Amino acid sequence: MATSARLTESLMVDTLMNYLVSMARTVESAMNRALDAIVSLDHPRTAALPGEVFLLEPRINEMEIVIDEQAIRLLRLGSLPEEELRLIVAALKLNNDLERIGDLAVNLAEGVVSLRQMPDAQIPEELAPMASAVRTMVSQSLGALISRSVEMATTVLESDDVVDRYRDRIFERQLKRMTGEPQVVAPCFQFVLATRHLERIADHATNIAEVTIFWVRGLDVRHGRGLGGLRESNVTKNSPGLDSDVTPGGHTDHLIFT
Amino acid sequence: MATSARLTESLMVDTLMNYLVSMARTVESAMNRALDAIVSLDHPRTAALPGEVFLLEPRINEMEIVIDEQAIRLLRLGSLPEEELRLIVAALKLNNDLERIGDLAVNLAEGVVSLRQMPDAQIPEELAPMASAVRTMVSQSLGALISRSVEMATTVLESDDVVDRYRDRIFERQLKRMTGEPQVVAPCFQFVLATRHLERIADHATNIAEVTIFWVRGLDVRHGRGLGGLRESNVTKNSPGLDSDVTPGGHTDHLIFT
Repeated sequence: MATSARLTESLMVDTLMNYLVSMARTVESAMNRALDAIVSLDHPRTAALPGEVFLLEPRINEMEIVIDEQAIRLLRLGSLPEEELRLIVAALKLNNDLERIGDLAVNLAEGVVSLRQMPDAQIPEELAPMASAVRTMVSQSLGALISRSVEMATTVLESDDVVDRYRDRIFERQLKRMTGEPQVVAPCFQFVLATRHLERIADHATNIAEVTIFWVRGLDVRHGRGLGGLRESNVTKNSPGLDSDVTPGGHTDHLIFT
Repeated sequence: MATSARLTESLMVDTLMNYLVSMARTVESAMNRALDAIVSLDHPRTAALPGEVFLLEPRINEMEIVIDEQAIRLLRLGSLPEEELRLIVAALKLNNDLERIGDLAVNLAEGVVSLRQMPDAQIPEELAPMASAVRTMVSQSLGALISRSVEMATTVLESDDVVDRYRDRIFERQLKRMTGEPQVVAPCFQFVLATRHLERIADHATNIAEVTIFWVRGLDVRHGRGLGGLRESNVTKNSPGLDSDVTPGGHTDHLIFT
């Protein structure tokens, strides 16, 4: 490729990465506001936060579209180096996870608006630690993406169970409260929905971590594949993964699709 | 490009499309079983359905990975015709929506297993029509994908509100029931979760319809963009969309990311 064309391509890749980082920061900021709002429901300091989350959403939506545009522009150039190609594929996927976290922040903020009007709303005691675990997962998954850290991404994959355990405990307690005290059914219901939103944010953080590992290592670790290898650090930079015809389960493409 | 290379590429694109269609059919079959199971909870005929849904999940997960592999193999060839490039980008995105519908079918089936053990489970009357609306949306979105029909995809985009209205009505009624009859809190809780799963399946059907329109027309209709144009049939095959630097809101990329 001519040098000037290569330079243009390289600048376009930098732009794509800058867009992703910028979107990641905006989404994290929306999510943090939503989490602050729900764990400090009754605090006057947090009253303005839901409105701020609503204002960020259209901006996040626009970012999603612009990132896809930039990724597709790069693909049109053709003949990209392997790592750039993987970054573009990763961008197309991450983009969606980031936008969904933005949506879930809006859903959480809507729940906060309802809950603030309910005098019987009593925050489940596991909500703050669950929100904190989710916050850490998102922060680490975005950190892994920005710093290309497979190690940080692997930590995220191991945190998902903690969030699920908090969810189970909150569900159990809210169910018990609703059965015993009919007047708290409405707020408990909102907390159940909020817990679901938190759980889904954690799922998207997991996706972001998986896509980051694919981008940096070329290794597909979805659905529990190849994780052992990551921890044992025996994965080489060009290990198979998305390039392989045979999945670890021993199936070939042909067999799966018959 | 040499003729034999072009032929190989064309065969690889056909394979990608065949994989997508096969995955779409498997996912639809899993979802239909889950829907049949939840709307006919007490029927002995449906007792085996949740188990069948669980069995389909690992197969769907494998399909997701193989489709991504095939899409990336094609991207490595470089210099693809515009429509093939869009199909590959579409495949990378659709893949994820299909896999998520498979996951949600599993979540629904898990709810059915719990509900079948609850003597007080009383199916909300709006659940069957809601499930039916969701089934139609998924069927139409996959039909649109397989037959490359923008018109069918547009119909899907217009159905999302119907599903949301059913969700609101079910939530309202379940909340009322839980407040009045403590003994039905547990089943009502499960129906609320199931309603959420249905709503999310509808969201993924909407995504599939949007991605299909992007593939066939090169037009990004996410977040309500460009839909008027679709209905007025004034969209040309090469209309801007993902290729444009300026979004309909009048922003430039630069302004969104500052």
